[in-house]
Amino acid sequence: MTAPAPYVPLTAETIERLRAALGPDAVSTDADTLDAASRDASTEVHRPEAVVRAVSARQVADLLRLAAGLRFAVTPRGAGTGLAAGALAVHGGVVLDLSGMNRILAVDPANLLAVVEPGVVVAELRRAAAEQGMFYPPDPASLDTATLGGTAATNAGGPACVKYGVTRHYVLGLEVVLPSGEIVTAGVATRKGVVGYDLAQLLVGSEGTLGVITRLWLRLVPLPEATRARVAVFPSLGAAMNTVAAVMAAGVTPSAVEFLDSRCLALVGDMLPLNPPPPPGAALLLLETDGSAEAAGQDMERVAAVCAAQGALHQIPAPDEERRAALWNVRRQVSLRIHDAAPIYVPEDVVLPLARIAAFVEVLPGLEQRHGLTIYAFGHAGDGNIHINISAPLGVEDAVEACITELLRLVVAMGGTMSGEHGIGRAKQRFLPLELPPASMALQRALKDTFDPGLILNPGKVFA
Amino acid sequence: MTAPAPYVPLTAETIERLRAALGPDAVSTDADTLDAASRDASTEVHRPEAVVRAVSARQVADLLRLAAGLRFAVTPRGAGTGLAAGALAVHGGVVLDLSGMNRILAVDPANLLAVVEPGVVVAELRRAAAEQGMFYPPDPASLDTATLGGTAATNAGGPACVKYGVTRHYVLGLEVVLPSGEIVTAGVATRKGVVGYDLAQLLVGSEGTLGVITRLWLRLVPLPEATRARVAVFPSLGAAMNTVAAVMAAGVTPSAVEFLDSRCLALVGDMLPLNPPPPPGAALLLLETDGSAEAAGQDMERVAAVCAAQGALHQIPAPDEERRAALWNVRRQVSLRIHDAAPIYVPEDVVLPLARIAAFVEVLPGLEQRHGLTIYAFGHAGDGNIHINISAPLGVEDAVEACITELLRLVVAMGGTMSGEHGIGRAKQRFLPLELPPASMALQRALKDTFDPGLILNPGKVFA
Repeated sequence: MTAPAPYVPLTAETIERLRAALGPDAVSTDADTLDAASRDASTEVHRPEAVVRAVSARQVADLLRLAAGLRFAVTPRGAGTGLAAGALAVHGGVVLDLSGMNRILAVDPANLLAVVEPGVVVAELRRAAAEQGMFYPPDPASLDTATLGGTAATNAGGPACVKYGVTRHYVLGLEVVLPSGEIVTAGVATRKGVVGYDLAQLLVGSEGTLGVITRLWLRLVPLPEATRARVAVFPSLGAAMNTVAAVMAAGVTPSAVEFLDSRCLALVGDMLPLNPPPPPGAALLLLETDGSAEAAGQDMERVAAVCAAQGALHQIPAPDEERRAALWNVRRQVSLRIHDAAPIYVPEDVVLPLARIAAFVEVLPGLEQRHGLTIYAFGHAGDGNIHINISAPLGVEDAVEACITELLRLVVAMGGTMSGEHGIGRAKQRFLPLELPPASMALQRALKDTFDPGLILNPGKVFA
Repeated sequence: MTAPAPYVPLTAETIERLRAALGPDAVSTDADTLDAASRDASTEVHRPEAVVRAVSARQVADLLRLAAGLRFAVTPRGAGTGLAAGALAVHGGVVLDLSGMNRILAVDPANLLAVVEPGVVVAELRRAAAEQGMFYPPDPASLDTATLGGTAATNAGGPACVKYGVTRHYVLGLEVVLPSGEIVTAGVATRKGVVGYDLAQLLVGSEGTLGVITRLWLRLVPLPEATRARVAVFPSLGAAMNTVAAVMAAGVTPSAVEFLDSRCLALVGDMLPLNPPPPPGAALLLLETDGSAEAAGQDMERVAAVCAAQGALHQIPAPDEERRAALWNVRRQVSLRIHDAAPIYVPEDVVLPLARIAAFVEVLPGLEQRHGLTIYAFGHAGDGNIHINISAPLGVEDAVEACITELLRLVVAMGGTMSGEHGIGRAKQRFLPLELPPASMALQRALKDTFDPGLILNPGKVFA
């Protein structure tokens, strides 16, 4: 990768040129707008010099051409829900706010696809699709605010992945503005396509470093007629994980398999009718099945039978939507209560081979002890995607860093990966060499260079 | 893209160096071996100067380093089942035969994955997975001979894609030898991962032009307990396509939705109990459902009801494996009988938006008339992936070329793509500019250059 040329601060003249090119309303430099664009869902703060609110691919192209000519950085941003600081302007310059490109251009049941602008909120598309009997499965925790452009750029996950796959699997085609200012379409508007390299799949998960997504062609599936949910509590996380494997082996692919470790269960156990209270070390599974009403019900019966056979201490079925929502609320409260438990809250996002989850979680108490921290583990048991949440008082940042480093080394040594859905952004880039070999890093840097030789697009992310 | 340097013919000395580096048995120059490597399932013939039969990534790396130094081309080959001439040595040099790397290293139900070498035949993995209650869904027509490395390199499809997705969706990670001779792993061995650019997804579908796949980590799913099949005959292809849409709208995602147009039906109608015989213009659907025995049965009942409501003239259920195999045999016989019908047989592989299939197929008779050819259409109705088979006597090659060009222009104009699963290889590269805009072509060429600056790996493919 060529050394990044130093970026040139935005002058009043540059701002005027931006306004002339993009329209006076598209460019903001007021303090409130800059402050709002300085933060995302990470703990980092980086203030841009201007915010451009684009409503068309043409504006994005004009902006990138100006950025290349005048040498300032452009950082694309959806709703700023990312946990990896991927949408923050670490080299200053312009934050490109795409949340205004928020039109659903088509929900097309006949072609089983949707065409959207990048600023459409995930939940909006899910609602619009459901109205026509269709389903857009990817469901990151932030789906009520996260945008489709952002979730495609980060290849977002969520509980539904265990059955339905990740965001990548729903991106058929993209319109993208390249750092050169060229507008290209990548991928297809059809259900299949193998014509040339799949640039769309390369752009998905590239965290806004290779191109700016300005339109998406997304695959939809028929809306499942029914969903059934159930909580089961087990005496140990090992027993819970064996249950996950046994459910799969019984031929059921649940539409969600979330778990809470004993620490998380202790945090939210008051929300569940658990009498007698679960013993120390107990773990919780939240399982869902979906499909036709018969199939969802029959699959859930199998799940219940497997849970019983695996020694579940409690089972709490949710035969209607209200009780189902109540179970999910328990799952959601976990993050909030961990967040409130201590000033430092670091959400890690590791993935282990399924059969290693229980062994992995067993090492966490030793890690806590060695570093003097508290670790909560919950997440997507069916995918092996575990959110390791490190909680600590202020002043122990060095211990947190040492703990994370040890944790990620262990994950990689156990055949896992350091991020399942949050991405690298800036928050994790210092750990990348723990996982990626030098040859892979070099090749990926060369790809970045090929797309963006001037390093103007989201510089300082993924690869330092 | 830099101009390809002229390749240097293999001398006796080069062959000796290859034998010294790779082992005497790894290198063949006998006429039979060269002849066998000169053909695939396309009509092209290109004779290599040597065939290297590798059994390790290390050998592949040594070969590529020698190729870079001595300037000869290397063309990776699995089983040679491709229809696009992608495995043929159009610039001479070495055909790298990977069919000997055929070990299944793991079928791991606990982790829902398999680890295989690239030469493992697709059907072998499906059998090994089934023995452990697992399922590897991708099912290209050539699955009894095609290799997993080849099907990953081409992102192969098949009937199961409509429910299960294409090969890409089952590739978690790859070990790849880059043209530089470096061995890198790309992707992950877990169910999720968003660490850096997804090189594995870029390599899938790149047709052996960016790297040589030497190991694959493949996602498995639980083996469906039961599969149900049914043939339904409709008075028109439009009615058949409306039925596909209605089945999906009823919340059923079949595990296969194949169609035959009236010409194909006429070719194989004798194999089916159709009395009275279907009227001119009739079309056939072959539908499958799978899942638990209850779910597969209930879904098939819904399919049958939808077919009846949409005016099916005949329905032929297949309640057991024997009758199911008989229905698939009808579908398979179509290709063979078309192939036997005339000396020229060109299998095209276009994809249309689902709602345009019927309109698209309606233009085929005009195309036949204008060019004096016979066109058979069948394929994967649930994906919009239509195999347009042009059949002609010898001597009308110009008419065939004109017909294909008109056909592909039409496909692109209707929002489709020119290949859904066969790929570009050499057979379709002259048509690429009909679909890909210059900016996309230039970017893809630059990617090729980034991976393979010396253009030694499968030169002359995808991009000319």
